[in-house]
Amino acid sequence: MHRFSPAMDALIEALRCLPGVGPKSAQRMALHLLERNREGAATLSRSLADAVERVGRCQQCRNLAEAVLCGICADTRRDASLLCIVETPGDILAIEQAGGYRGRYFVLMGHLSPIDGIGPEEIGLPLLEALARDGEVQEVILATNPTVEGEATAYYITRMLEPLIPRMSRIAHGVPLGGELEYVDGSTLAHAFSGRQPVPGS
Amino acid sequence: MHRFSPAMDALIEALRCLPGVGPKSAQRMALHLLERNREGAATLSRSLADAVERVGRCQQCRNLAEAVLCGICADTRRDASLLCIVETPGDILAIEQAGGYRGRYFVLMGHLSPIDGIGPEEIGLPLLEALARDGEVQEVILATNPTVEGEATAYYITRMLEPLIPRMSRIAHGVPLGGELEYVDGSTLAHAFSGRQPVPGS
Repeated sequence: MHRFSPAMDALIEALRCLPGVGPKSAQRMALHLLERNREGAATLSRSLADAVERVGRCQQCRNLAEAVLCGICADTRRDASLLCIVETPGDILAIEQAGGYRGRYFVLMGHLSPIDGIGPEEIGLPLLEALARDGEVQEVILATNPTVEGEATAYYITRMLEPLIPRMSRIAHGVPLGGELEYVDGSTLAHAFSGRQPVPGS
Repeated sequence: MHRFSPAMDALIEALRCLPGVGPKSAQRMALHLLERNREGAATLSRSLADAVERVGRCQQCRNLAEAVLCGICADTRRDASLLCIVETPGDILAIEQAGGYRGRYFVLMGHLSPIDGIGPEEIGLPLLEALARDGEVQEVILATNPTVEGEATAYYITRMLEPLIPRMSRIAHGVPLGGELEYVDGSTLAHAFSGRQPVPGS
């Protein structure tokens, strides 16, 4: 049974490919667009087609890019001796917004997950190894997520790059700044204790 | 400053036309589509263009429709003597899903709101009046929302149609079934008391 009309039903169904959008939200979005924002809907349609056509992967770091190299790899002012390994392009954005990091990135586009058929090839490790063999990278910073899969991936990459890269580090995990100890989960707290750092001058 | 690349930034901006989608969700949606569901993105692009092109208004009831008449107006089994007036096509869906109503609808596509420049013309009241003058409609059920604007709109329509329609009614408002009195807001409760109905046989 059609709920509205064939084109509306198809639109509602298509909107459900967006993360976090269920049948109710999809219906609300479709009605909103067709009742009140047809221009926005047309623009969104064009932007989607455009992005699908133009956005590919950076050939050096696997970040989303519209050219052979992404903006960061193409930027000669970035420190090519420093390479930060992240799981997704969104992670790059978070690090760039935090500021302070001036090196380059390598995007895994996921993490090792043998159960889902995601092995070293799928997360681009041959490309990463080739990059490390180039000799330009002097330090690798592992910034995969502090999850079981992220940790396993970081461990695998450490073993793979150890013979090639002089310095390897993992970003620090612990109590977030501004967080209250009382509300921090147990494993984070345990991590904060085991990773405690000497107070300078003590 | 570009956050990702021009096409990505344009897509993130365009996604914000969806209701309830802020900058963070738009970014998450864009990354999800380009990293993991390009086919879904292409389908969504086509569905949007399709819907914008094909979906117009029913010439009789102003509901969203792909033909001159919407599915309900075109359905000769529906009772043409009964007309339910609602604010949006979403309201029709809710009533149809509840079942039981077999008449037709008239969709205002909003409510009277002089401050936003929405007067009787904008919510299609001339069309409604012409429909009422046809003589086929015997009862009008006012199902606008129980908000200040919805009530004012219902009142205005009542005054307009009174000379033409033998029976006019407003849907009942009160404590929702399954709701607990304790958690119902004061104005609903006051409405439930003032609109109390005699118990049959008492």
